[in-house]
Order: sequence, then structure tokens, then C-alpha cells
Amino acid sequence: MGKKNSGLSIIPLGGVGEIGKNMMVFEYGDDIIVVDAGVAFPGEELYGIDLVIQDTRYLTENKERVRAFFISHGHEDHIGALPYVLKDIDVPVYGTRLTIGLIKKRLIEHGMVEDVKLIEIHPDDVISAGVFKVEFFRVNHSIPDGVGLAINTPEGLVVHSGDFKLDHTPIDGRVTELHKLTGYGARGVLVLICDSTGVENVGYTPSEKVVGETFTKEFETAKGRILVATFASNVHRIQQVVNAAVEYDRKIAVVGRSMINVVEAARELGYLSCPDSIMIDIDEINKHAPHRIVIITTGSQGEPMAALTRIAEGSHRQIVLQPGDTVIVSASPIPGNAKHVYRTINSLFKGGARVVYKDVASVHVSGHAAREEIKTLINMVKPQFAMPFHGEYRHLVKFRKTASELGIPEENVIISAIGDRNVFRRKEYSMQGKVHAGSIMIDGLGIGDVGNIVLRDRKHLAEDGVVVAVLTIDKATGAVLSGPDIVSRGFVYIRESEELLAKMKHELDRTVKGCEAKRIREWATIKEQIRKTLSNVMYSETKRKPLILPVIMEV
Amino acid sequence: MGKKNSGLSIIPLGGVGEIGKNMMVFEYGDDIIVVDAGVAFPGEELYGIDLVIQDTRYLTENKERVRAFFISHGHEDHIGALPYVLKDIDVPVYGTRLTIGLIKKRLIEHGMVEDVKLIEIHPDDVISAGVFKVEFFRVNHSIPDGVGLAINTPEGLVVHSGDFKLDHTPIDGRVTELHKLTGYGARGVLVLICDSTGVENVGYTPSEKVVGETFTKEFETAKGRILVATFASNVHRIQQVVNAAVEYDRKIAVVGRSMINVVEAARELGYLSCPDSIMIDIDEINKHAPHRIVIITTGSQGEPMAALTRIAEGSHRQIVLQPGDTVIVSASPIPGNAKHVYRTINSLFKGGARVVYKDVASVHVSGHAAREEIKTLINMVKPQFAMPFHGEYRHLVKFRKTASELGIPEENVIISAIGDRNVFRRKEYSMQGKVHAGSIMIDGLGIGDVGNIVLRDRKHLAEDGVVVAVLTIDKATGAVLSGPDIVSRGFVYIRESEELLAKMKHELDRTVKGCEAKRIREWATIKEQIRKTLSNVMYSETKRKPLILPVIMEV
Repeated sequence: MGKKNSGLSIIPLGGVGEIGKNMMVFEYGDDIIVVDAGVAFPGEELYGIDLVIQDTRYLTENKERVRAFFISHGHEDHIGALPYVLKDIDVPVYGTRLTIGLIKKRLIEHGMVEDVKLIEIHPDDVISAGVFKVEFFRVNHSIPDGVGLAINTPEGLVVHSGDFKLDHTPIDGRVTELHKLTGYGARGVLVLICDSTGVENVGYTPSEKVVGETFTKEFETAKGRILVATFASNVHRIQQVVNAAVEYDRKIAVVGRSMINVVEAARELGYLSCPDSIMIDIDEINKHAPHRIVIITTGSQGEPMAALTRIAEGSHRQIVLQPGDTVIVSASPIPGNAKHVYRTINSLFKGGARVVYKDVASVHVSGHAAREEIKTLINMVKPQFAMPFHGEYRHLVKFRKTASELGIPEENVIISAIGDRNVFRRKEYSMQGKVHAGSIMIDGLGIGDVGNIVLRDRKHLAEDGVVVAVLTIDKATGAVLSGPDIVSRGFVYIRESEELLAKMKHELDRTVKGCEAKRIREWATIKEQIRKTLSNVMYSETKRKPLILPVIMEV
Repeated sequence: MGKKNSGLSIIPLGGVGEIGKNMMVFEYGDDIIVVDAGVAFPGEELYGIDLVIQDTRYLTENKERVRAFFISHGHEDHIGALPYVLKDIDVPVYGTRLTIGLIKKRLIEHGMVEDVKLIEIHPDDVISAGVFKVEFFRVNHSIPDGVGLAINTPEGLVVHSGDFKLDHTPIDGRVTELHKLTGYGARGVLVLICDSTGVENVGYTPSEKVVGETFTKEFETAKGRILVATFASNVHRIQQVVNAAVEYDRKIAVVGRSMINVVEAARELGYLSCPDSIMIDIDEINKHAPHRIVIITTGSQGEPMAALTRIAEGSHRQIVLQPGDTVIVSASPIPGNAKHVYRTINSLFKGGARVVYKDVASVHVSGHAAREEIKTLINMVKPQFAMPFHGEYRHLVKFRKTASELGIPEENVIISAIGDRNVFRRKEYSMQGKVHAGSIMIDGLGIGDVGNIVLRDRKHLAEDGVVVAVLTIDKATGAVLSGPDIVSRGFVYIRESEELLAKMKHELDRTVKGCEAKRIREWATIKEQIRKTLSNVMYSETKRKPLILPVIMEV
């Protein structure tokens, strides 16, 4: 764009029409600021992929115009892409204290904390970045120290909700700053960018306190040890476990790398209040009576390597499940994780534990606003335009319906796709094309080197395995000197399929001899024949289609 | 066992501690009968597997003692294994009319309908099979014509609930036969084998009628076409769509192979009442105004190849989504399918449809009893012992808790594992060892030829792909005549990874030359060196560990 165009552009590079990898770009004239830089976690259809991030080529190509990153809170889907995007773009990153603390940990892991200017803000600060002036308001969420943003632009005020709920009895006493929101409403708001992920839930999301009440009830009655599994970043939840432990005189041990990290960071930074005297090392748990012990652990999503999963499977080094244990799984399974979570719960039951989980008790509340809270926000902010983010497409559509019920015309509710340049100029909206945008897959150290072809092959390999056919040919005469040999993996159990393999070998020999006799010398032709022969035999015998790799060697 | 032991054995060969592949064996002296023979559908961790069935070696080894199969209802998880187990065991199969009709279709697909003696029963029949006398009682479930069984044995009466709920306003007017259940209670029941899958749900499962009310509301207001996706076997649900279509004067087209099959079978057998005049062919839908059309379709679980999925993706040959369409997804996502279901819903929204689904309307009820219904059954039957089936381990545990609240001693609630021989003799229970039991995986035509080793390889291939290194060696001298060559699939995108591949090749050359120089002739040693070299380079460069296949050819 640059100077020749005017108006305010709002460009989502992630987080709309999907859950995860949140990133929203604001552009006016020569100035760009970015809100959030998160990752998405791949589904099982992305074989072997570890993380998905935004394609930020647009930012890299315009890096001299990028003024700052503003981060709303410390969840991975809002901070996790920073180590990648900041490799190319050297600008300050603003966030509240806990958020900056968590970003710092990530950057240390990537060996780049020295290179990044992290700036801690207080929610009452105002930060100038180019033409933009950014204000903040506290919001309640499932991690402390979350904020939303009020971005003053030449075209008007833009309010970005961050991830929010309205919890009137939050654990840290810090209610979403309603007075600031109504204040923006009084000043006049051009666009509200609003968390829409909870819009399908009617009414209100219950207060985090509700979970504390369940903890109290369980601590009151549990005769043996108590294990609580939750998200490491849910410091409020952990605070409630600590409070119950203090009340019922139990010592606390923490297990799981990310849980240990967060508890440490949250205590250091003053977000978790926890007497030193009740914290014990995991190796000390057997020095205390079972009814004097609480273990706080990772694994609430049934993650294969997490502590609770290993405890359930009997493979945890320090914690052996014992009858009389109470295990509280304080989380809701993310879609795709349900099977893993229930596998863990079943194993815990088999180990003799009492298990308390979402289906049978109030052990979890969402961190996101339900429909009535979203309505409350809209009515406080009174925006001219609204743009839902943090939602699959269905959530964006439901948000539009909800907003229109409050009197915002449907055409003023913008369902943006990733990369859309949404332009606001003189109180009018238009969509002006797309910038380069998309997803980049991270697998191990590789950033973007696994694409659709590699994934297609992995899917193929996953379903039917691989069969390699190797052949050595005389360069001069074309005579077959060795082979064809067949090697397979993931196809059939070789030792019990001798007959099938003999048949494959037999047909392959015939094909290769045929090629030899016909003096076919083009490798491509021979390979194609090999593929066809093997494919036919295998499909007719097994109805399977393994990936076939013919290899020809010349000597 | 045979004659030398006495007592009644109840042996689950599937369906306890898992959802799916239901099968319960009853044995007394020389007589064995079997209730149900279902399949389980594999999770994504069973790469490429199509179905899972019981290991029925115990039945095959004792086939001369097996008298009959009794099938409670026509769902796949109760009938799907019949074509496999009946290959070895030639005995009659009993079931109600619709159940037998659906079994027949399965057997025809397997080309074995001529070989099996299918016997239709009425719920008031009494069938003798060896020493056993089997009575039946109608139950409500999400398929018509379901029954439970009351099995008279020399040790006492055993009641098997089948899959049931207590629907006081069922669509076909056939209420679960409560009088028979209280009658069994009056006669005295030794063991109740009880559907436990809904035990976590407090209260009552709503009547199927509730869904009809939602249909009526949607039909009342929909301006365009209506598409309803549901399970093909849920004939009651389909009946309610038909009823709404009749009431609101819409023609019905049916799409999806299994939906077409079931509608056809259910109409033929008298389970679906549907005027001929409103049924139209799918090719005729465009001859009618949109508000005169209903399409009943498969795909309610987001299955990749199902009709609704293809409609949502715009790849269905006959049905193109149009703005104004209302799509009712009348089902609840089975754990593991949620992501697929929501992908379909999002695509439908993108196509401009109004989508009505579980999260926003009452479009589905369960076919299984909730906790209060289970209590009602227990109090009607008043068994001495109870054994939950049709449940993961957590459900079995919750069932025990529920039953014990009604006064059945905890030790009389039997949580059986698959293969346990549960013996009842003179009103006393003991677990007497295990019979051979387990799971057999079906992949294409292969029954049991994919085991843990093949699955482990498929998982490995799925995550990181495969790298093949080939080498031709002179048999006489051990000199390398050709190669090493590297071929890979699912590892990296070759064209963009030239540097990495060059490095791999370079290191591999060095290793092979080293082996040559050291006159190493053992293939195993050379292969091990190749594996080690490639593994090191790839891990240090990419942090990935593809499956490495070294192949050595000799000429």
C-alpha cells in the first residue's frame, strides 16, 4: 500500500475461520502494527507436523514499516509464532508482565532473547507506534494478565477484545475493565474486533470460582492423595488448588515440565500466591501420609508424553497410582483429544483411582465469553463495524447473527478471511483484495519444507505402508544382474505372508524378464511396469495400495 | 470346560471396557450360545485398519458345542462380525425382522447369504438352544426392532438388556416391554447384563420425539431446501423427517448408498411408512421449487466420502449447495469425529447454508439409557448379580457405583474383562481364568495380517516418512559397483532440499567407502552403518527420524 492509498487496513494473518495462530495486522500509511503472533496445533491429518504458523511474508516484505507487536496474553496461540516472525523483523514487543515473562521463556528456548526488545506495559499505559496510539483494558481469561486493546487510528478507534470473558468473581479480583469499555463506547468506536469462539454457548460462562467449589468438595471428602491435572497456563486454576491445599492441610508437589515452569514463573512474577512451606519435591511425596498430599500435573488433554498419561499407564518414574487416589482432570477435551483423554481416564480407573472429570462434575469452565457476554461487550462498545475473530467459520456466522440482533447491520459485521485487506476510510468499509497469506508447517527444525506433496505421501504411507522393488541392470547390455528384490514396511507382517510375497516376487520376475526380452531400456517405462504389476497383485490379493518405490541400479 | 465342570459361564468376547464389537458367550455343560457379533471402528491410531473384530478362536475351537447366535438389534457393532465368525461356525442366527433383514444385506455383500440359516423371531417367541431357553423383550433404541434377552439357564435366569433406553413416546409406539422386565424380576434374576454407556448422564435420555419437534420448527420456517443428515440406521429419525415432509408438503430425495439401502429395506419390511407419491429421485430435485424439497443424506459424522461431506465441499455430482438451504445435522459427533463434523459444518456455512446442529438446537438424542433409566431397569429386574457391558472402563465403574446405590453389593457387580470366564454356580460367582480372546484387525481383505509391528511401522512412516538407501556390491570382491543412491517419500520436499540431500549423499558415500576400505562384508554391519550415518545427518539437520531402509544388491 504505502502512501498512495489512504484509509485504515485491518488484515488478519490468522485466527479467523480457524482456532489458533492468531495475528491481526493494522496498517495506515507508512505504519504497521501487529496484534498477537500465535501458533496452531496440527490435527492428525497433518502427519508428523509439530506446529502451524502464519505465512508472514507480507510483514517481512514491509518490515521497515512495522512499528511494534502487541500481545494480548500469554497463551501459545497468541505468542508461539514470535520466535519465528521476529527472526526477520526487529521491532519492540509489548505485553503485560506475565505475558512478557512467558514470551521471554519461549525466546530463551530459541536462543534469541538477547535480540528482542520486550517491553512490559501496565494496562493504564498508552503506547505510540507510528500513527497508532494503543490503550489497554484488562480482561478475564483462563490465564492471568490478559488485556484487550483500544487502538486510536486516524480513521477512528478500534477495539480488539483479546480473548475474554466477563468473570464478576475472578480469582485475582481483577474484573474485566468495564468502565474503559463504556468509555470507548462514549468516545465512539469504528470497529470492534471480538472473540467469537464461545458464541454458540447461550447465557454466561460460569465464573472460575465454580471450579474452586468443586475442588473444596473433593478435598473435603478425599481419603487418599489428590492429583489435579490442568493446563499449565491456567494459573487461576492452580491458585485454587493451592488454596484448597492450604485449607485442608496438604503438601503440594508439581510434576510435568511445563507445569513446573509456569508455577515457577507465576510465583516469581507474583501471579501465584503459595506459601513455601507447603511446596515439596516430587521425591518427597512418600514421606507424607496420602491424605496430606496434592500433586499438580500436566496431561489434562491425554497428551501421550505428559505426566498424568504416564502415571495412568504406570510408566511414571516417581508416581505410582494407588487405590484411594483421587484424580481431578480439570479441563475440557479439545476436539481431537477426546479419545486420548478418555483413554487416560479409563486407565486411571483401572489403576483403582477415583476419577473426577468433566462429564461427572464441574471441574472446568471456559475462558471465553458466551453469547450474553458478547452482547454485553457489543452494547458497551457500540461499534459501527464488528469483526469476529478467534473462531471457526461457524462461530463467525453466529457472531454476525448475534451482533445483528443488537442492531448492527449485517453488512457491517465483517467475516474476514485470512489475508483479506479490510479497509476503513471515512467511516466506510471495503474489502480491497488480499495480501500474501496462509499457513506454514513446522516439522522438527524444518519451517515450511513439508508441503502438500510430502503430507500426501505420509498419508499414503500411514494407510498402507511402503513396498520397495530394487533391480540392478547391466549398463551396457540392459541385462538384469541382480533382483528384483522386494522390501516392505507397514504393508503386511512378512513372516506370516510368505505366500503373498512369493506371488509378488513371481509376478515381478515375469515383468522384469519381459522388459529384458523386449529390450526396454527406459527406466521410467520399467519402473511404471514394476509399479503396475505390484499394484495389481497387491490389490487383488489384499485390497491394499501401498506406496510403491521402484529403484533401478546400473553397473 | 465341557462336562467335567459345572455352572454357567458368561464370557464377554468384546464390548466390555470398550465401545464396539459386542459379543457375549453363554456356556453350560456342552452348550454354548452367543449374543451379538459386532465390529468396532478403529481410531486414527490404527493406521489404515478398516474394522476390528473379536478373536473368536474360543468359539471356533468349540464349534461343535455352539448352538446359536442371538442378535439384539441391527447396528454394526452388534452384527458386523457375523460374516467373519460364521465362516467357521455353522449355526442358526436368530433376530427380529429388521435385524435379520440387515444381517442378510451384510451376508449378501460377503457372498455367503446362502450358507447361513437366518431365523426371524417375534419378541414373544421362546427359542430353545441346547440347555438354554431364550425369551425376548422389546427395547427402545436408535434403530427399530431392538430386543433384550431373558436367558433361562440351569443356574437361573439371565437378563441381557441389549442396547436400550426407556422412551415413553417412541415413534413406532412400541414402548420397552416393562411388564416382561418386572415379570423376570418376580421370577428371580440371577444376572442382569446391562447397557452402561449412558450411565454418566444424569436423569433421563429425552424421547426421540424431541427431535421431531425441532424438525417441525425448522420445516415451519425454512424458506429454501432442507437437507437432513443422520445415521442411516436411525429409521425413527428418518420417519420423523418423512412426517415433517408430509405435513409441510415437501418431496423427499434420498442420497448416500447406506441411506438408500436402509430406506429401501425399512420400507420393504414395514418399518418406515412413507407415501410413494412424495419420494422423488435425486435427479428430479431441480424440477421442484426449493421450498418443496427435503434431501435425506448420509454424512452426519463428517465421513470423508459421505454425501453431505461432498455436498459441503462442492464435489457432489447432483447436489450443489445454494444460499437459502437449511442443513440439519441430526447427530452427535462420535469422539474422534468432531473435527470432521465441524469441518463439514464450516464448509456448509461458507456455502451460504443455514446449518442447524447439535451445539445450537435439539437435533439429536441418544439411543442409550441415562442413569435414572438404568436404575429403573435394575429395580424392575432385581438381579442378584449385575454385569455392565457396552461401555468403556469408566462407564463400567460408574455402573457399579449406581447399582450399589440401589442395594446390589459392590462385589456382586462384575466388571469383566474381555475373555474372563465368569462362572455362576449355586448362586455363587467366581472368575475362573480366561479363554483365548482379543482383537483382530481387518485391513482390506486381510484378517489379522496387520499386527503391532506393521502398525508401528505405519506410525513411523506417517510421522517422518521413509528414506531408502540402495547399494550394489561385487559379490566376489565386495567392491561398490553402484550407489549408494537415496530415495525418499514423506520426508522433505526433494526439490527444495537439495542441500540436505547432497549432505546425506556425501556422508553416506564416506560411510560406504569406509566399509569398503575396511573390507566389511557382512550385510548387517553395512546396513547398520548406513542407518546410523543417515539417521545422524537427518536428525541433526531436521530433528526428524524417518524410517531408514538400506538395501544391498549383489552382482
